[in-house]
Amino acid sequence: MLRVFQRTSRLSRAPRHPCIQSAASPTAQFLPVDLQSPLPVWGSAQFKVFCQNLHKETDGHRPSPAAAPERRPFSRLSGEDLDYFRTILPGRTITDPDLVESSNVDWLKSVRGSSEVVLRPQTTEEVSQILRYCNKGNLAVNPQGGNTGLVGGSVPVYDEIILSTSLMNNILSFDNISGVLTCQAGCVLENLSQFLEEQDHIMPLDLGAKGSCQIGGNVATNAGGLRLLRYGSLHGTVLGLEVVLAGGQVLDCLATLRKDNTGYDLKQLFIGSEGTLGVITAVSILCPRKPKSVNVVFLGCETFEQLLRAFQLCRGMLGEILSAFEFLDSECMRLLKTHLKLTNPISDCPFYILIETSGSDPSHDEQKLHNFLEEAMTSLLVSDGTVATEESKIKALWSMRERVTEALTHDGFNYKYDISLPVEQIYHLVTDMRQHLGNRAKSVVGYGHVGDGNIHLNVTSAARDPALLAAIEPFVYEWTARHHGSISAEHGLGLKKRNYIHYSKSSQAVALMGHIKTMLDPKGILNPYKTLPDHLR
Amino acid sequence: MLRVFQRTSRLSRAPRHPCIQSAASPTAQFLPVDLQSPLPVWGSAQFKVFCQNLHKETDGHRPSPAAAPERRPFSRLSGEDLDYFRTILPGRTITDPDLVESSNVDWLKSVRGSSEVVLRPQTTEEVSQILRYCNKGNLAVNPQGGNTGLVGGSVPVYDEIILSTSLMNNILSFDNISGVLTCQAGCVLENLSQFLEEQDHIMPLDLGAKGSCQIGGNVATNAGGLRLLRYGSLHGTVLGLEVVLAGGQVLDCLATLRKDNTGYDLKQLFIGSEGTLGVITAVSILCPRKPKSVNVVFLGCETFEQLLRAFQLCRGMLGEILSAFEFLDSECMRLLKTHLKLTNPISDCPFYILIETSGSDPSHDEQKLHNFLEEAMTSLLVSDGTVATEESKIKALWSMRERVTEALTHDGFNYKYDISLPVEQIYHLVTDMRQHLGNRAKSVVGYGHVGDGNIHLNVTSAARDPALLAAIEPFVYEWTARHHGSISAEHGLGLKKRNYIHYSKSSQAVALMGHIKTMLDPKGILNPYKTLPDHLR
Repeated sequence: MLRVFQRTSRLSRAPRHPCIQSAASPTAQFLPVDLQSPLPVWGSAQFKVFCQNLHKETDGHRPSPAAAPERRPFSRLSGEDLDYFRTILPGRTITDPDLVESSNVDWLKSVRGSSEVVLRPQTTEEVSQILRYCNKGNLAVNPQGGNTGLVGGSVPVYDEIILSTSLMNNILSFDNISGVLTCQAGCVLENLSQFLEEQDHIMPLDLGAKGSCQIGGNVATNAGGLRLLRYGSLHGTVLGLEVVLAGGQVLDCLATLRKDNTGYDLKQLFIGSEGTLGVITAVSILCPRKPKSVNVVFLGCETFEQLLRAFQLCRGMLGEILSAFEFLDSECMRLLKTHLKLTNPISDCPFYILIETSGSDPSHDEQKLHNFLEEAMTSLLVSDGTVATEESKIKALWSMRERVTEALTHDGFNYKYDISLPVEQIYHLVTDMRQHLGNRAKSVVGYGHVGDGNIHLNVTSAARDPALLAAIEPFVYEWTARHHGSISAEHGLGLKKRNYIHYSKSSQAVALMGHIKTMLDPKGILNPYKTLPDHLR
Repeated sequence: MLRVFQRTSRLSRAPRHPCIQSAASPTAQFLPVDLQSPLPVWGSAQFKVFCQNLHKETDGHRPSPAAAPERRPFSRLSGEDLDYFRTILPGRTITDPDLVESSNVDWLKSVRGSSEVVLRPQTTEEVSQILRYCNKGNLAVNPQGGNTGLVGGSVPVYDEIILSTSLMNNILSFDNISGVLTCQAGCVLENLSQFLEEQDHIMPLDLGAKGSCQIGGNVATNAGGLRLLRYGSLHGTVLGLEVVLAGGQVLDCLATLRKDNTGYDLKQLFIGSEGTLGVITAVSILCPRKPKSVNVVFLGCETFEQLLRAFQLCRGMLGEILSAFEFLDSECMRLLKTHLKLTNPISDCPFYILIETSGSDPSHDEQKLHNFLEEAMTSLLVSDGTVATEESKIKALWSMRERVTEALTHDGFNYKYDISLPVEQIYHLVTDMRQHLGNRAKSVVGYGHVGDGNIHLNVTSAARDPALLAAIEPFVYEWTARHHGSISAEHGLGLKKRNYIHYSKSSQAVALMGHIKTMLDPKGILNPYKTLPDHLR
């Protein structure tokens, strides 16, 4: 039943989708929190009311909870400030409006700031000098890596000074015995991968944005990506961090040890904190050996139930060589065909699975895969499939999964949700959403990382459609909360989702996050308006 | 060259080593930290002086830095307090001195507290009630799991109330598709392993103390153990925690999701905080599938350099099935023979390696192992070896590594160090220590987890010997700091090592830990005198 692979076109970068959104709204004030007092938290009734109010059009003019709050009373950039920056960063204090513009707008072109300066430090000491100065002068700072984030966390909201790590791109060391890489935060993920390839190793994470994203940003956003199923999250693979705190203090936790139980594991605080607690300047990370053999299969399933059973079978039979278990639905396939002219490499099915194996012995891996496929077909879990072992064919099969995002941008205006759920539930969200929206949406599609319980739900419409948005939200968030899921599995909260945090975190937890923010950044200068909900400010 | 396996005796629990140590010394006062001010930290000069002073006999009476500081001004337990506890925990408020005694003394019998009561809550709500009451009344609390810690962290120092999680031993859920287990903190590790075995899964960690240690304690101490090389640290495998904070607030971060980027990952703070920031009441953890085949080989090497080359070869050739790479030196083997009458299963060598593989296909695993052994022997990296595939033989080979601790207790008084280092350096510590001590020590041995860069250095003497201790410390800590290692790889700091933290953590980092402690436990009632150095109190 397995057929010869039909070549699809190669991976290419998705074009930017233009949909600039202006941002202004009246909200919260900056109030310091008294950390000595007991945690001030909301009762569950208050919390419910908050969530309901987020979406209520009380006066007909209520802005979206994703819109930016009012500018906080930070200082405005002065000529004197620029003179100082030019002294410490000669030639690397960028004020040319054309150059600054690309750092003001996010990759999706969905949010835009109005910063007037981009600072490009090369050393930790320079980052420290910048933050010491900004903290003293009450100047807000937007730390920026590759600017590939999807939730408006990587660009300024108003006139925050952009602190770019792009020139901090040195590899500091690599230990071939332990596989520990240490590098500056601005190293581009793909460059690190290429460097490691020569050392017979790979990075423990891989992303579609690898050509632009930086390791510091990956860590700051706790990027998940395509290898998480196999190598685990950055909370496990990052061994050390160097971080500059809001006041300019350098926190050196740049250990290269797999084990270190001397006190609290402070680096963990900064993994996933989206630049709101400190600026990551260097990273040490545990890198696996490069697998000697990689195989990819693309399979079709009649039901999502069968797909889940195939996943279970796969965990048992492929075991230690399973490195990805991804899926897309038939709606995704329709968009790939319609907008990108890709050819379905197998016969049409309601669901498609992409399985990747990575191992140290090609013949063993092929045999395991063969046994699994035989069992999956005999048990009627999959109805069709194709296998790729050559690199170009592997890339082409992967593109069926990776280019869904690109196909979606051609389908119209995108409403994007990145949800994690107990794995049995993930596709119910799509079917329920489809039923809920009826014919109000153009397309409702689901794809993602089954192995991680992570689905990307996307809804498209011909153009921006507030009525459609009101039908999607809070439905999607309430549905997710009801099923104990996360409203942001890997994209983070940034600007756009900060006010939805209560759907996935208890009010106690959110209050404690506020305390931590105040402890580490008392003036709130680091990446303001991001991650934490407005009522904490 | 591979020979038939010769049976060694089975695993047995090491006997407790009696060496009660009285604890009292004049030191630091409890000073609240102002969290709004910039981090108050020491300059590196101050830090050096502190480390030197730790070991200086200024007045001939200076106690060891490991000795307990003065009792802090917590309230004393009253009859009224006991009445309250008996009301909320009827029949589970233990005051019988014989029963309390075993909770006052640690497993090594190296430290002893003088608590008068052990509380045995069954629910999170009861833990919350206890802490709310204790925090209000300024009563200190010692959270206790299986009491198997090695650094005096698990027992009271003075009269702290012992809060035992032993009766919180319910498994709450297990998801067979994702492999996520959720349970109360008091579940014994071995019981969880047995439960999972029936579900075709295993725990991601395994320890010698598995018969007594509890999962809550494992998480609180960030236990490493024998499977870390394969499945990574608890920072990666723990998906959620429920924690009761000092004031009784329940922090619900008990997610069961592999991915969740909604705000700061608070649970990470409590992993490895040794009960000083909160009491862990429930854990959710990602469990791997049970491997279908396990093999163990025991090999001999002529030099440590060869052993490291064998490790590198092993990473490449065994790849994804490698699950342990442990070692012991010839001195360990001498003690196993002398004190436990074990027989070396291979010919005598300066170094011994134990390699374990775990995989999903027995024939593939055996072939990989065979290829590796052939290459290792052809390249003269190993000089002798034996293989075990049956469970009883596997256990016997493992006992050559696991019973070293027991053999050491028969050799005399033990000075134990748990050090992690860049892997190339780990054995240099042993040879340098041997040279440094000359004939002052009875034995100086090294064994441990090569794969994790973690060595257990042990020095023995006929009896407790302050002069020998003065020769070992600070030498061992200074050596470790000079080589960028950790002075506690997996054992934690507890009471005994709290004042040595500066050897592995920067003063900025230690200061920040103090801030976090003060934020979460303003009165310092949770596991006082542990983890953080006296000068922060």
